[in-house]
Amino acid sequence: MASPDTLQRRGLMFILSSPSGAGKTTIARKLLAHDAEIRMSVSVTTRPPRPGEVDGQDYIFASQAEFDRMVEDGQFLEWATVFGNSYGTPKAQVKAGIREGQDFLFDIDWQGTQQLYQKMETDVVRVFLLPPSIDELRRRLTGRGTDPAEVIQSRMDRARAEISHWDGYDYVIVNDDIEACFAKVCEILAAERMKRARQTGLIGFVRGLMTD
Amino acid sequence: MASPDTLQRRGLMFILSSPSGAGKTTIARKLLAHDAEIRMSVSVTTRPPRPGEVDGQDYIFASQAEFDRMVEDGQFLEWATVFGNSYGTPKAQVKAGIREGQDFLFDIDWQGTQQLYQKMETDVVRVFLLPPSIDELRRRLTGRGTDPAEVIQSRMDRARAEISHWDGYDYVIVNDDIEACFAKVCEILAAERMKRARQTGLIGFVRGLMTD
Repeated sequence: MASPDTLQRRGLMFILSSPSGAGKTTIARKLLAHDAEIRMSVSVTTRPPRPGEVDGQDYIFASQAEFDRMVEDGQFLEWATVFGNSYGTPKAQVKAGIREGQDFLFDIDWQGTQQLYQKMETDVVRVFLLPPSIDELRRRLTGRGTDPAEVIQSRMDRARAEISHWDGYDYVIVNDDIEACFAKVCEILAAERMKRARQTGLIGFVRGLMTD
Repeated sequence: MASPDTLQRRGLMFILSSPSGAGKTTIARKLLAHDAEIRMSVSVTTRPPRPGEVDGQDYIFASQAEFDRMVEDGQFLEWATVFGNSYGTPKAQVKAGIREGQDFLFDIDWQGTQQLYQKMETDVVRVFLLPPSIDELRRRLTGRGTDPAEVIQSRMDRARAEISHWDGYDYVIVNDDIEACFAKVCEILAAERMKRARQTGLIGFVRGLMTD
C-alpha cells in the first residue's frame, strides 16, 4: 500500500496580490526559495531577451504576431500588455503541471486574478496582502524621499485602486511583519494542499482501507 | 486605527470526524488544551448528571419532554440518541458565540456533520482523519486482545461504515503520526481563520486605508 505521505495530489495555482509596497514580491521570493513544490509558470512574452535570459526557462520569447495568434487560439490563462510588451500565462503548461501535482505561484494584480479564476476556479487560491496602515504604505512608497509629491500621490492612488479589490480574494493577510506574514502564507498553502478535492490519491488509498 | 492583530473575526465550527481508532479524540483533546480560541459547545442531554458534573458547564441537563420540545422548536443544530440518551447542540449558543469570534470544536460522526453543514454551511469546516492502514486500524481496535473475534469484526465494520463517508469532508488527513497530524489540524484551523469572509473587521480596516 502507498505511504500516506506519497499520495498523489492535484497541484494548485497560488495567487499573491497586493498593492505596491505591501510586501508581495518579498513573500513570493521567500516562498520560491523555501518550498520545493511550488514554482512560477514560464510566461510567453514579446519583450526581447535580456542578456543571460534563456528561452523556455526564464520566458518563452515570441513575436507579436505569434503572441496575437496564441491569444486568438485561447492558449492563455491570462495575458496583459505592460509598457508595450505583452505577457501571457500558457494554459497547457499550467494544466499539465497541476495534473502532476505541481503548484504554481502567481504574483499578479486583481485583473489577472479574475482572468485566472474565471478559467481555473477550483484550482485557484487567492491571497491578498494589505499594508498595516496608510502611513506605513506612504512611507514605503515614498522611498528615499527624492521623488516629487505628485509621483508619490500617483503611487498612492494606484495602491488604493488595487486595495479596493481586496474582497475578491479567498484570504487576506495584513502584513505588519514579513516573517509573520510569510508564516501565514505557508499555513494557507499547507491547508489548501490538504483539501480533499486535491488529494486525488485518496480514492485509491480509501479503497485499500475498505478491503482486507 | 485598530491593530491588524486585533481585527474582529467571525468564529467557525471545526468538525473532526474519523472512524474509532483513527485518533480523533486525542487530536480533539490536544486542540482544546493548546488553542485558547476554540472550545466545545455545551450540549443539552437527557442523561442524568454524573457526580461532579455541573449543569450549564459540562452539559445542560434536560428531561426527555424538555428535549423533545427543543427538537420540535428547531432549537438544535444537530441531535442524536445514543444508548437511550439524547444529546443536542443548541443553535442559539453556537450562533451567538460565532458572532463574537468564538470557534467551536465538534467531535461528531458523518451524520452529525451533515446536520451541521445543512444548517450552518459557510461557518463549518469539516476535517476527516483516516488511519494509516487497515492493519493499523485493526491493531488499534483489537485493544488488549481479550475481545472475541466477532466483537473486533463488528468494530471494523463500524469503522469502515464511517470511512465510507470520507468524501463529504473539506479536508482529509491520514493520521500516521499523532504530532504530525495535530500540526496539520492546526494549519487548517489557522488558514480557515484567515479566510476573508470570516475577517469581519477587515471592512473597517480597509476603509481606514482608503481615507487619509
